[in-house]
Amino acid sequence: MACSTDVDANLAKAGEMIREAARRGAQIICVQELFRSQYFCQTEAIETFNLAEPVPGPTTESFARLARELGVVLIGSIFERRMAGVYHNTAFVVDADGTMLGLYRKMHIPDDPRFYEKYYFTPGDLGFRCFDTRYGRIAALVCWDQWYPEGARLAALQGAQILFYPTAIGFHESDAGEAQHQHNAWETIQRSHAIANGVYVASVNRVGHEGPAGDGLQFWGGSFVADPQGRMLAKAGDGEEILVVECDTARIEQVRRNWPFLRDRRIDAYGGITARVID
Amino acid sequence: MACSTDVDANLAKAGEMIREAARRGAQIICVQELFRSQYFCQTEAIETFNLAEPVPGPTTESFARLARELGVVLIGSIFERRMAGVYHNTAFVVDADGTMLGLYRKMHIPDDPRFYEKYYFTPGDLGFRCFDTRYGRIAALVCWDQWYPEGARLAALQGAQILFYPTAIGFHESDAGEAQHQHNAWETIQRSHAIANGVYVASVNRVGHEGPAGDGLQFWGGSFVADPQGRMLAKAGDGEEILVVECDTARIEQVRRNWPFLRDRRIDAYGGITARVID
Repeated sequence: MACSTDVDANLAKAGEMIREAARRGAQIICVQELFRSQYFCQTEAIETFNLAEPVPGPTTESFARLARELGVVLIGSIFERRMAGVYHNTAFVVDADGTMLGLYRKMHIPDDPRFYEKYYFTPGDLGFRCFDTRYGRIAALVCWDQWYPEGARLAALQGAQILFYPTAIGFHESDAGEAQHQHNAWETIQRSHAIANGVYVASVNRVGHEGPAGDGLQFWGGSFVADPQGRMLAKAGDGEEILVVECDTARIEQVRRNWPFLRDRRIDAYGGITARVID
Repeated sequence: MACSTDVDANLAKAGEMIREAARRGAQIICVQELFRSQYFCQTEAIETFNLAEPVPGPTTESFARLARELGVVLIGSIFERRMAGVYHNTAFVVDADGTMLGLYRKMHIPDDPRFYEKYYFTPGDLGFRCFDTRYGRIAALVCWDQWYPEGARLAALQGAQILFYPTAIGFHESDAGEAQHQHNAWETIQRSHAIANGVYVASVNRVGHEGPAGDGLQFWGGSFVADPQGRMLAKAGDGEEILVVECDTARIEQVRRNWPFLRDRRIDAYGGITARVID
């Protein structure tokens, strides 16, 4: 979805889209990253921290009510105020009875021109996590995590069946010529997580233009669900859209029996993964 | 290239193709996996171990002579006899002056119907390795390693600029309906290694049909080189082909500055990668 500067309107809009997804049969519903506001990390401004909210807080409580009412699992995303001076980019998972199952605090924090996330977000300290929901065992990861095979692997090793990536990715207007290549790479790396791990991947991205005309971000949408073989099951365009996609968890085992990558991992030889660089 | 059952003819043919690649300006030349023979792992047969050769041995010595004569770096692949009862699927790198730089013994060993590699090959014990050659710092990985982000990452953390994957991948004829999906996944995961790590990836595959008609393997070729953004620079068809592709190592730094994934790795949180499963 596209977001306005009105945080209450964005919550209401997300609620309507969640209701519509549930009407269409969705059981696990994920919204985009930081859907309560426009993507505020385009600038570093101290007053922006006023957007942060605690857990429990208005968004988690609203989602808990909605999940219970609709009988659906919800994955939300907030700018979390944990304490004065400690703020996170946080995903949360609410089970279909309204129970808060837990948080995932974004582990990999980017910092690029117009994506000044290191200013706002303390890196997550909860690690990579899975949540048992009524409709499956899922992991929530967030945006920049998409580029890291380690995060996907660690979620899969915990038994995740679907990796959800709430996201806010787009291109800076000065970089429009590169946009298609960036979008392709973004899809490719996430499909590769599905392949390497034999899991479904669901990526949920923002759409629309935000920021100053000619110098803002164009979010490319393109939300998608890939199957455990990396095949695209459904893919949104660059406008607002609700994708409802059936994910057959039996296919996970079928794919992994045919492609038994997890059998042959050389865990005796992977220690160097925890090095910054192997000099 | 396609291989016959004549191991000397295969060596001679590879030599001719290497000469042709060098004539076209290639500086680092990689042949396919186990190019001295047909892909013998389609069956488990004890006499097949007679194909194994030591290091130094006929193939490494032939390649060393050729490398020195042509002034090119060569990446070869052999069925290595290390000692009685210990055999490996081994890549080797010869520098442009004919110096043997070292071995890479395939770390991930598959075993699927008609790919009975666990019968023949002891898993490698040299880890993931890089080699400084006259024309760049490269890593050699082999076939099934393609499916493991860990191997690519460990090579990249050692400074590899190009990952070479000598390969013998195809589809069993009974599985032809799945072939395109498998081929897509194979490309996708390797392109993802380029993206995740900001390296070039060069994958060199066998072509042709081997084994009993109607019950053999059809190797799909499709050798390719992807740039550090995962873009396909060149891609072969399903017949014999020599791809000569310019890889600008300056582009590695350019891509990594734009996509600074290596900056933000959460090495404090990756310890679980060495677990089989995180229960």
